[in-house]
Amino acid sequence: MTVELPLLLALDLIGTFAFGLNGALTAVRTTQLDIVGVVTLAVITAMGGGILRDVLIGDVPPATFRDWRYLALAVGGGLLAFALSHRLGRLELPINVLDAVGLSAFAVIGASKAMAFGLDVGPAVILGTITGVGGGTIRDTLVGQVPMVLRSELYAIPALVAAVITVATIQAGLYGLTAALVAAGVCFGLRMVGVVFGLNAPGPPGTRRTDPREEG
Amino acid sequence: MTVELPLLLALDLIGTFAFGLNGALTAVRTTQLDIVGVVTLAVITAMGGGILRDVLIGDVPPATFRDWRYLALAVGGGLLAFALSHRLGRLELPINVLDAVGLSAFAVIGASKAMAFGLDVGPAVILGTITGVGGGTIRDTLVGQVPMVLRSELYAIPALVAAVITVATIQAGLYGLTAALVAAGVCFGLRMVGVVFGLNAPGPPGTRRTDPREEG
Amino acid sequence: MTVELPLLLALDLIGTFAFGLNGALTAVRTTQLDIVGVVTLAVITAMGGGILRDVLIGDVPPATFRDWRYLALAVGGGLLAFALSHRLGRLELPINVLDAVGLSAFAVIGASKAMAFGLDVGPAVILGTITGVGGGTIRDTLVGQVPMVLRSELYAIPALVAAVITVATIQAGLYGLTAALVAAGVCFGLRMVGVVFGLNAPGPPGTRRTDPREEG
Repeated sequence: MTVELPLLLALDLIGTFAFGLNGALTAVRTTQLDIVGVVTLAVITAMGGGILRDVLIGDVPPATFRDWRYLALAVGGGLLAFALSHRLGRLELPINVLDAVGLSAFAVIGASKAMAFGLDVGPAVILGTITGVGGGTIRDTLVGQVPMVLRSELYAIPALVAAVITVATIQAGLYGLTAALVAAGVCFGLRMVGVVFGLNAPGPPGTRRTDPREEG
Repeated sequence: MTVELPLLLALDLIGTFAFGLNGALTAVRTTQLDIVGVVTLAVITAMGGGILRDVLIGDVPPATFRDWRYLALAVGGGLLAFALSHRLGRLELPINVLDAVGLSAFAVIGASKAMAFGLDVGPAVILGTITGVGGGTIRDTLVGQVPMVLRSELYAIPALVAAVITVATIQAGLYGLTAALVAAGVCFGLRMVGVVFGLNAPGPPGTRRTDPREEG
Repeated sequence: MTVELPLLLALDLIGTFAFGLNGALTAVRTTQLDIVGVVTLAVITAMGGGILRDVLIGDVPPATFRDWRYLALAVGGGLLAFALSHRLGRLELPINVLDAVGLSAFAVIGASKAMAFGLDVGPAVILGTITGVGGGTIRDTLVGQVPMVLRSELYAIPALVAAVITVATIQAGLYGLTAALVAAGVCFGLRMVGVVFGLNAPGPPGTRRTDPREEG
């Protein structure tokens, strides 16, 4: 059982598909990987967050292994992105949008599953955040980049906010599809604000920040 | 219990020793590590796949911690490779052969153990593949290289094929030493074809592939 | 339950705080991360070793999730280091000292917890060592450096010695605060000898070692 409501399962599957597309496009852009490498990175990105979540709450083997739809969507997303990648020109925008979709969906589902497994409020928020940022962090590390969650532009914060909204509405007895969509929507919105305006959290006092994207 | 048959245990221990040698040679070649670094990378490479496998199926503490022979073989392989490394000249070939031995042994053992723990056919195949490629992926990530499983030259595919043969023969009631050796042999053969001929899976449509080894 | 004695809990919390400060300073120095990235790396560094430990012995959700003090100290340490970083000039020394404090505390606590969970002597020593070096290894990997545990200068060895002392005193019925402090103190001392004198374990026979720090 990942989520009780079919519509929340849909959110989980959408996140998986989005991260599958994203992982594949990242593979094409950053390292010119071949089809096996592209699909492998798609699967790791799509399933990484959920595997971390399930290992940390002790629900093993992970749900992503037990339900074939996760793997099918991750591989399907990877193949689709591989086939379309040469038409997408500069991949920056689709990569960021798809990453934001996966981040939002997984932060909500992660926090929700943690509560269903009896975790306290605080740990459930942490676990939701880890679920959201986990797949992308493994993805970036494998292709040799400092992970987005460290380079920021509002990455961990939106996931944290979504996890807080999810946990708060569960505690208040108000959780359901609407609450999940609001939480995911707020996360997605915050993340896209960060992407579009290149906003970063403040640097250490006394330093002038340089844009990390200029440094590679 | 990792495997019931003593001969399958032997396969597991051979894989551990091969990955121990491989991890140590990789450490010597890529980063000029000292003896502690070399042995550490040997142990991580040799035990990484099995630890991932056991954490993902919930068999903790991992078998590699409970049976001293795994650690002894990993450390022994690391020390031996460290002592011999200056005689091996260019380390490319022994590194690749040893890696292929470990990949093959672990893919078979991983799939077999997953079935013994009651996983379904699909998850067992995934788990076998992860067990095979896991140690090498952690190894490459730690020394700052894009992992072989992404750079490919037939790396994930041979492990996947070995896991499929293993799971299929278990389902058909034909699994045993012969089946395990066939599965591992096919994996080893496919992987060596990839190494010797530098074969890569096809790149994205519309791109001309460059050999990733030329790019570093 | 992480440790029975309140004073051992203190050791665990001190290690968490030290690694929080260390992770944040590392983030400031190596990658000019903004405040979110700095605090994120602080939390990962401070909680990484304990999470690995708890996943490997099957005590999930990890203790660091269930007790809010760990997260508070990790975040607090991260914010404090962020605020003070511009006053610390060259961050090399505080980074190394704080890392040695965390390494020492976590190696002892990890070995002690492993024994409390019924692991054998050998596995408990390995687990203590992993707990000590785990957070720093994840930290270095995320910021794109070959981890300290591979580059050495006495890093894995001091943690291993602390774990051996811890396990030996537990076996002898002599474990308690004094034994824990001795084990941690020996680890800290050995590590600082390595830092101060730049000592490395010997390189492969037939090679002249270059200082890895000169190679970046």
